[in-house]
Amino acid sequence: MSGTIRICFIGDSFVQGIGDPEHRGWVGRVLEATGGDITAFNLGIRRDTSEDVLRRCWQEVLPRTLPGSDNRLVVSFGSNDMVQENGTVRVGAARTVENLASILEEARRQAITPLVVGPPPVVDAGGEHLRRTAALADEMAALCRSQHVPFIATTLELADDPVWTREALAGDGAHPGRGGYQRLAELVGAGQWRAWIEQPGS
Amino acid sequence: MSGTIRICFIGDSFVQGIGDPEHRGWVGRVLEATGGDITAFNLGIRRDTSEDVLRRCWQEVLPRTLPGSDNRLVVSFGSNDMVQENGTVRVGAARTVENLASILEEARRQAITPLVVGPPPVVDAGGEHLRRTAALADEMAALCRSQHVPFIATTLELADDPVWTREALAGDGAHPGRGGYQRLAELVGAGQWRAWIEQPGS
Repeated sequence: MSGTIRICFIGDSFVQGIGDPEHRGWVGRVLEATGGDITAFNLGIRRDTSEDVLRRCWQEVLPRTLPGSDNRLVVSFGSNDMVQENGTVRVGAARTVENLASILEEARRQAITPLVVGPPPVVDAGGEHLRRTAALADEMAALCRSQHVPFIATTLELADDPVWTREALAGDGAHPGRGGYQRLAELVGAGQWRAWIEQPGS
Repeated sequence: MSGTIRICFIGDSFVQGIGDPEHRGWVGRVLEATGGDITAFNLGIRRDTSEDVLRRCWQEVLPRTLPGSDNRLVVSFGSNDMVQENGTVRVGAARTVENLASILEEARRQAITPLVVGPPPVVDAGGEHLRRTAALADEMAALCRSQHVPFIATTLELADDPVWTREALAGDGAHPGRGGYQRLAELVGAGQWRAWIEQPGS
């Protein structure tokens, strides 16, 4: 593993780690479990949709890259896109996938190596939200597969996880505490994360 | 304490928590000790001087504020300003203080409540760097006093702290591990932090 890996994590409140009393979320836990000398930046903002992330992505990511370093980008969004407001979803699934495609394309142009973490479930948003989010996650996974970008599924895995759901319901209905974030960190760390970290950078 | 406090922490590698195996640094530790429902954003970037922070400050902070919320800003820089490169400091102390004044002025205009954390020492940078950084910290403190902004001194406190210095020297010479960040978190938490957190927002 290179000592010069720099990773920006961009996305929503789950990336930000909202609800974690330790204030590091799954991002800090994955990094601790990975070890080594990784320079990480957490660019999660609660309530952000894929539209919001796309709007600020390069403006915030590029100042955190360093020429000659192994620059990486972890993207995770979609749960907020699928939330209904005034009878319609905040961002339609086709648009979410387009936004992800746009980010992956620019990452390639910038020689920044990407990985995508699927949208976690919003426990108190109900079964229809879960169904929409899982379907969106499948479309995001298909896009990633076609581009040879690792995608780590989380939606149904966490919806079925008793720690995640119990902590979310004991909290604000959406965000877990330390146990749920640990569970998500394990999902990420058990996926294609390790191979992605160990591959040579762009 | 309001449930709607949003705090951006902006600054350098010490804000970012470089070297902390838990990947949360003093920022995460202060927030854990504070408790409550605080939405926090870590905008530390390693190697950043006050010039670098000023350049990106509002572009990154404003999208993280929310109208009607109790929006806050914690600023910490100066250690990199005082590093010599090619026979001269990266940023002169007068300019660092001007940059801080500019940020505090704009914070007032934006109704964002600020707090300043003084520059930690860079252990392996030698006695002259420590002397310059401590003098800069005094000037930053004087500015803050004149503007009724809380300032928490860290430079000499950490330079004299055996945990901080031992961990820094065992690491990259500048950044501590979990013990040093815990020590810095205690310095911050024991200062004017609690009163600042508990005061009504702007």
